[in-house]
Amino acid sequence: MTFDVLVEVSLRPGIADPQGATVERSLPRLGFDEVHGVRMGKAVRFTIDAADEEAALRRVDELCRRFLTNPVLEDSTVTLEPSAQGARR
Amino acid sequence: MTFDVLVEVSLRPGIADPQGATVERSLPRLGFDEVHGVRMGKAVRFTIDAADEEAALRRVDELCRRFLTNPVLEDSTVTLEPSAQGARR
Repeated sequence: MTFDVLVEVSLRPGIADPQGATVERSLPRLGFDEVHGVRMGKAVRFTIDAADEEAALRRVDELCRRFLTNPVLEDSTVTLEPSAQGARR
Repeated sequence: MTFDVLVEVSLRPGIADPQGATVERSLPRLGFDEVHGVRMGKAVRFTIDAADEEAALRRVDELCRRFLTNPVLEDSTVTLEPSAQGARR
């Protein structure tokens, strides 16, 4: 089976986010003073082949831990669903 | 009302994604040859104050169009829900 995966990589609470802070500081001047708490993260999308959803999740978790995130600074949130397009390459 | 917002900014289909391609090329050597179609995007989280959900969505769409994305190269996907923590600053 093929699964579509979205991994959201975000800075952990309390870790400074200069990029988000810069965006937030600029917004009032641009007319958006109702926006607060801007945090910039990464969104990684890919497909993975696995026997079932549980096996896919296990591999994605390992991928996150080993390569996609720095666990000291970053959290990851995984969303996974069967691919609508079947096995894509 | 305060809403929690997630904006996923992704490269449009067909736009080259060198960062994603580099990750994908490396994965087989690292033992993940079942992963394909890697695309790197941004995940922007923030809170917005608005009268209701419709007004919040309208402002977030404007923010995406004007500042968070380059509409020639990028798509944005907005997820919005009432903030659990009320008005955060």
